[in-house]
Amino acid sequence: MAKKKIGVLLSGCGVYDGTEIHESVLTLFFIDQSNAEAVCFAPDIPQAHVVNHLTQEEMSETRNVLVESARIARGQIWNIDEVDVAELDAVILPGGFGAAKNLSEFAFKGPQGKVNESVASFLKKMIEAGKPLGALCIAPVAVGMALKDRSPELTIGSEPEVIEALNALGVKHALCKVDEICVDSKNSIVTTPAYMLGSGIADVATGIQKLVEKVIEMTQ
Amino acid sequence: MAKKKIGVLLSGCGVYDGTEIHESVLTLFFIDQSNAEAVCFAPDIPQAHVVNHLTQEEMSETRNVLVESARIARGQIWNIDEVDVAELDAVILPGGFGAAKNLSEFAFKGPQGKVNESVASFLKKMIEAGKPLGALCIAPVAVGMALKDRSPELTIGSEPEVIEALNALGVKHALCKVDEICVDSKNSIVTTPAYMLGSGIADVATGIQKLVEKVIEMTQ
Repeated sequence: MAKKKIGVLLSGCGVYDGTEIHESVLTLFFIDQSNAEAVCFAPDIPQAHVVNHLTQEEMSETRNVLVESARIARGQIWNIDEVDVAELDAVILPGGFGAAKNLSEFAFKGPQGKVNESVASFLKKMIEAGKPLGALCIAPVAVGMALKDRSPELTIGSEPEVIEALNALGVKHALCKVDEICVDSKNSIVTTPAYMLGSGIADVATGIQKLVEKVIEMTQ
Repeated sequence: MAKKKIGVLLSGCGVYDGTEIHESVLTLFFIDQSNAEAVCFAPDIPQAHVVNHLTQEEMSETRNVLVESARIARGQIWNIDEVDVAELDAVILPGGFGAAKNLSEFAFKGPQGKVNESVASFLKKMIEAGKPLGALCIAPVAVGMALKDRSPELTIGSEPEVIEALNALGVKHALCKVDEICVDSKNSIVTTPAYMLGSGIADVATGIQKLVEKVIEMTQ
């Protein structure tokens, strides 16, 4: 039987301006361990900004989301605009500020900000096709913003202002522990708090493994 | 009992010009899962060059090894010159070209190239203190170059030119499969081929887990 193809939507390379690296690698690891195939992709756009991860200060340079995401994917990555939804069985969005800065404007403009058009279009096509969608850490904000018409149920840690922002969109928030997942069966969306709550990589890994296995289980 | 402190020596962020990201994250994961504490550090030097991981072409910009390594460490990282060997129980070097481009000159000058002075000094102090040392993928070249006086036994994949280069230094090479480790008991050095051989992240993870557990077991 052909392996299930699980899309992994990246948003750069590094927690403060791109995809959270640990969450991304653990997602790829658990996909492979589940005998499915990861297909990485990202939008071909400039990053919102570049953050020095040693000092957390902004750097005066520009980087491209697809090019930097390619570091996590070891070069095996596609432009989101070239990805055919029909080729995928599911998609997972690891966290990191990239989801709130590059995939959406949540970090700068809150829930009224825009979602990148390619990302919004992709997520809508996936959910219309009934394909399951997983999101980690802060990435559920991009999902909630893109799919607010579906009134999804998501978990996003425990910060009241983030939860309120999601509620304002019509998203239902479920409080989960770091090793738990939130399953929205109606919309086939699975979320886990990951580093929104987790203090250590092994804690975070437990929730990510459950999410990956649940997403694969929900594929048709 | 206090947790064992396992140093993780990084060399940038990305397989082609820095530390291999999957190997780094899996190392951090298995250290945490083994109830030990990872302590990340890197040299504060410019990268040898910057490679676009989408096209594999060189980019006309400069990046700093410590600053880029901080992406993998989520900001929790130290300059190698500030690390006290007495504070660590062991050290592990993940792979990636950074070990052969930034930590040493192996990729450009072969085994006659230099090892970064801070790295060479650190590795010598660790081995003189009898503390175990792990190295993944291509990183054993930096270890072999820095510690050639010890005639260590290492594994480094199966490429004949790399093996010959190591032999020329007086290093003994042991052929291992991707899920195996090479243990040099005399010098307390553990190596595994990782992505020098592995085709998938789950394969690579098996060898890395064995290496991390062996290194921790060898600490005093």
